[in-house]
Amino acid sequence: MAKDQGTIPPAAASNQPSTTGHMVIQRISPQIDCGRYRAKAIAGDRVDVGADILRDGPDLLRAVIRYRGPGETKWSEAPMDPTENDRWEGWFRPSTVGPWRYCVEAWTDDFGTWRRDLSRKAVAGQKVDLELEEGALLIESRLDGMSAEAKTSAIAWATKLRAKTRKRPDPRVIAALDDDLLVLMNAHPDRTGSTTSDVLELTVERERARFGAWYEFFPRSSGTKTKHGTLKDSHKTLRYAADMGFDVVYLPPIHPIGTAFRKGKNNKLKAGPKDVGSPWAIGAAEGGHKDVHPDLGTIEDFDELVAEAERLGIEICLDFAIQCSPDHPWVTDHPEWFNHRPDGTIKYAENPPKKYQDIYPINFDTPDRQGLWDELKSIVDFWIGHGVKIFRVDNPHTKSFAFWEWMIDGVHREHPDVIFLAEAFTRPKVMQTLAKLGFTQSYTYFTWRNYKWEIEEYLTELTRTEMAHYFRPNFFANTPDILHEYLQAGGPPAFKIRLVLASMLSPTYGIYSGFELFENVPVKEGSEEYLNSEKFELRPRSVKGKPNLVPYITRINDVRKKHPALSELTNLHFHQTDKDAIIAFSKTSPGEAPILVVVNLNPWHWEEATVELDLDVLGLDPSDPFEVHDLITDTTFVWRGAWNYVRLDPQEEPAHIFRIGR
Amino acid sequence: MAKDQGTIPPAAASNQPSTTGHMVIQRISPQIDCGRYRAKAIAGDRVDVGADILRDGPDLLRAVIRYRGPGETKWSEAPMDPTENDRWEGWFRPSTVGPWRYCVEAWTDDFGTWRRDLSRKAVAGQKVDLELEEGALLIESRLDGMSAEAKTSAIAWATKLRAKTRKRPDPRVIAALDDDLLVLMNAHPDRTGSTTSDVLELTVERERARFGAWYEFFPRSSGTKTKHGTLKDSHKTLRYAADMGFDVVYLPPIHPIGTAFRKGKNNKLKAGPKDVGSPWAIGAAEGGHKDVHPDLGTIEDFDELVAEAERLGIEICLDFAIQCSPDHPWVTDHPEWFNHRPDGTIKYAENPPKKYQDIYPINFDTPDRQGLWDELKSIVDFWIGHGVKIFRVDNPHTKSFAFWEWMIDGVHREHPDVIFLAEAFTRPKVMQTLAKLGFTQSYTYFTWRNYKWEIEEYLTELTRTEMAHYFRPNFFANTPDILHEYLQAGGPPAFKIRLVLASMLSPTYGIYSGFELFENVPVKEGSEEYLNSEKFELRPRSVKGKPNLVPYITRINDVRKKHPALSELTNLHFHQTDKDAIIAFSKTSPGEAPILVVVNLNPWHWEEATVELDLDVLGLDPSDPFEVHDLITDTTFVWRGAWNYVRLDPQEEPAHIFRIGR
Repeated sequence: MAKDQGTIPPAAASNQPSTTGHMVIQRISPQIDCGRYRAKAIAGDRVDVGADILRDGPDLLRAVIRYRGPGETKWSEAPMDPTENDRWEGWFRPSTVGPWRYCVEAWTDDFGTWRRDLSRKAVAGQKVDLELEEGALLIESRLDGMSAEAKTSAIAWATKLRAKTRKRPDPRVIAALDDDLLVLMNAHPDRTGSTTSDVLELTVERERARFGAWYEFFPRSSGTKTKHGTLKDSHKTLRYAADMGFDVVYLPPIHPIGTAFRKGKNNKLKAGPKDVGSPWAIGAAEGGHKDVHPDLGTIEDFDELVAEAERLGIEICLDFAIQCSPDHPWVTDHPEWFNHRPDGTIKYAENPPKKYQDIYPINFDTPDRQGLWDELKSIVDFWIGHGVKIFRVDNPHTKSFAFWEWMIDGVHREHPDVIFLAEAFTRPKVMQTLAKLGFTQSYTYFTWRNYKWEIEEYLTELTRTEMAHYFRPNFFANTPDILHEYLQAGGPPAFKIRLVLASMLSPTYGIYSGFELFENVPVKEGSEEYLNSEKFELRPRSVKGKPNLVPYITRINDVRKKHPALSELTNLHFHQTDKDAIIAFSKTSPGEAPILVVVNLNPWHWEEATVELDLDVLGLDPSDPFEVHDLITDTTFVWRGAWNYVRLDPQEEPAHIFRIGR
Repeated sequence: MAKDQGTIPPAAASNQPSTTGHMVIQRISPQIDCGRYRAKAIAGDRVDVGADILRDGPDLLRAVIRYRGPGETKWSEAPMDPTENDRWEGWFRPSTVGPWRYCVEAWTDDFGTWRRDLSRKAVAGQKVDLELEEGALLIESRLDGMSAEAKTSAIAWATKLRAKTRKRPDPRVIAALDDDLLVLMNAHPDRTGSTTSDVLELTVERERARFGAWYEFFPRSSGTKTKHGTLKDSHKTLRYAADMGFDVVYLPPIHPIGTAFRKGKNNKLKAGPKDVGSPWAIGAAEGGHKDVHPDLGTIEDFDELVAEAERLGIEICLDFAIQCSPDHPWVTDHPEWFNHRPDGTIKYAENPPKKYQDIYPINFDTPDRQGLWDELKSIVDFWIGHGVKIFRVDNPHTKSFAFWEWMIDGVHREHPDVIFLAEAFTRPKVMQTLAKLGFTQSYTYFTWRNYKWEIEEYLTELTRTEMAHYFRPNFFANTPDILHEYLQAGGPPAFKIRLVLASMLSPTYGIYSGFELFENVPVKEGSEEYLNSEKFELRPRSVKGKPNLVPYITRINDVRKKHPALSELTNLHFHQTDKDAIIAFSKTSPGEAPILVVVNLNPWHWEEATVELDLDVLGLDPSDPFEVHDLITDTTFVWRGAWNYVRLDPQEEPAHIFRIGR
């Protein structure tokens, strides 16, 4: 706000956004919506900070980033340097997970300014005796803050600046411009009149928040067509996923399922007596969100599954779906947590004219908000207590924004390593808001981006706009709700293509089981729902003897783990090709071989194209030949210069994943 | 800042940038640096306000701008409407000068949401008895806030919604969806849970802040070569400027000039006994910033000049140059307001290795800051007391940012109609900061933008970026310091070209006297300084019998006054041409004939080009012919469609200023 000024502000008071005194510090980056929301980072990663820093007059400036980790009481500092147009940049590396703070401090560089002006005058042959005396006084003004050793050195410099001499070149000027004196004075700046920006916050998370391969499966399908799978049965699926190189398995809700208004196979309004119902209709006589479906087993079985996952080096992600079946214990214990209609009934979920009588939404604004919100958070805490550190949150956009911020903040205060994935497929700004409110990762529009132009446009938005600071995409190639037409129509090559795109474009990606078996039959034409959707029935699977993508997926996940460039998002760079069907992009990481991915987006036919590499981005010399080694087929080509030919037949390999050089 | 949340925030508390409860209001426009600075507007102009407004869930929203003028205690409201991607827009029209406030308030549209859902269910043939009862209850919940008449009407609607009926179509549904009911309910929204953004401020100024033609002249040149001109002599120059249609005359400093280190003709280090010195070396035995140079006359003469200006409908702008000659009374009365060197001398101005011994800069950080700042502000107040409402501020970037904000705020609190023009030619962000701190208008890079691409680029920055909200350009075609090479080399056609560009691109523009006489001789090759610069000597001028631009300027100023589109800045639109030498742009204003300007930027040779009009912008039909009437030559052409041929000979007319249509 523009201040209501009545008196003169102190010349160097800090008042952010800052422009009292002579200094302006503005447009600090990262900064989300004027600091209302936290930017995100990963422990051990570099955080780049920029700011417009300027002052009136001709004096030089110096600036630092100040930063502080969780629980730290002292600020650390990192230098900032001017780039162009009064923009300053620097970086720091948060070492631990949790909330970090950072700000920018800038001050007038009195010694640097004096040194610059002295040098100009000396070069012009002007008399500088008074200037040298000013310099000596400047040096002496810093003695108080100096060590004994520095003090001795400083006094010696001041003496040199005051020496009587007629020699030319003037030894006093030579001393004044000596780099050692500059280093000494830079180490002892006068920051009494410095300006400090407001403090911004940063959520620092563990590496899995940025990088991971996810596999979704329904534990109940780990049995047979007629025998409900159990958590014990799921151990083999867990090993199967771990063997493919996945880092996370995501399980749809494992809680008791309501019977009232239970949906039948293929979402039929009436369920048959053997129908298992949707796991998202949570709650029955057997319990609610803190209970395990009796057909899946017990909480002890769950603990065993978690222990097995730990042994395998894979993590279990649970679903957090805040809604109840009409049989949920809350319906009788806490009817006030639901919405009521004039006839006294509880309001079921609707998207008029669609009705979801099997699901009661929660009223987040209930007068017993504290009770409700505490209970909801205690669900997350309960499963954290059972070893779960990752939650996939169902439809968060239909629940209270304020609740999410409160809940995630609260959980993170005790467990900063917990990851929340927002399953919101809705309007862009709603999805962005959920990420700003604290969700670690977000589902995306990826499945609906299939043409080159729209893939490039979407990834440019994710990597080159402010979203890069707070929105971490998780590229699922399919989900139980989304079987895209491209997969329905494109056959096995389409599955390979989408897998390569998901896993190479985004450091975090996932598939829902069945993908590796090329499952591609929709419930009806024009629908993205699966036929015989696993949401409503058991779907045991076996890859044995069937065409499948298991080796390909295993290779892909291996390539991802071995090449650090693929664990990052914003290092993505698109390269031009002369065909709409051929997309090319690279990822680079300092000190690592660049990865170049070239994909034929046409699953039906071979395509050839010339790829125009941006050699600067890849660190390549235009005249030297270089090797490109295909990490899928283990073949090597020698390329030279920017323009190189590719031909990709989807029936063989629709994509090259090249390691460049070496 | 991300809040440190310990307890649940109330579901609908306002906390800006706002996202407690269900609502998010973000990215309000105009908003400068997160509200740190005020946007600018003109009394009577429309202020467009935009915001991202969204909430969780599927409910509909409504939103308003709330705004309040200076001294008003009640907020007014203007509606906002959604455009696309959760962006909402609306506008209000501040009626008076002074500081205005505005914010955005949004709330859930419970009736609209209910109506939408009812309609969908009714269309699908669903039973809606309960919904109608809910609607009736909703209507009844508003009775308290209603007038007797509205109440009667509301009760009647509720009764209709509850009527027993078997008729089809259902008369209850028809009533529920009736527009009259919608209007009634929209007029009585439930805003108890609304969310309001932070309040932003807006500096609202008079029309002259946006629109005006300026003429700069040195009063002391209104005499003869040997006789120092006086303020009395300046009456004729005032009439001359008024006759040409100028709105403002800007006078360089009119105060006593120091003799110590006075500069001679052409900036010679030593002045001769008759040399008049630079008016910017302010202060002598005869007085300082509140005094009139004795050779110019008396304060009474100045009052007479102001009175004459008022009669002529022209305004006088004074120069406010905060610096002193060594002879300024402050040097002895307030030595503590200056910077001192180790030998006790006062520090003169420098830009090493250049020295300006005739000028002492002020130390804005003096311990007697209150005394100094008050005295400086009192200078402005003094001249306001003598009828001056416009100040051109000399080199504000070399003075304290904090001072300017304090001073301009302080002056505007009593005199919101005072205009400050910042004469800063420096780095972009420093110039932007001065405008943000409160300067009404700013000098610009216009003189150094001569090619088509750079003119288009610069004007796009001024009109299409955030700068449009706070930075008002004043396009001087020349100044006593800037005689651009283009004018030096291009002869009279260059002067016409630059005049047309300045006056047509920017609603505020100016020339420094001599421009109309094509004065174009630099002090030396490669310099932008005038030979025999008026800064250091008397330069009486007469246009009589000499080639001059007076009729052309008069016509231009007349065209500007008669065509409201030319009094605005952001209505500028560039049209493509197929020649680099030909630039084309238009300005449009609702209900007014569009103005189209086509200029040959080559002062040496005729050029022809095809102009590709953006017909949509001009409101033209591609198939209908239309007239373009040249307001300079009073000739009319008939054009048709987007592509039209022009040929411009700089020896005749280098520019068309077309009024389109009619």
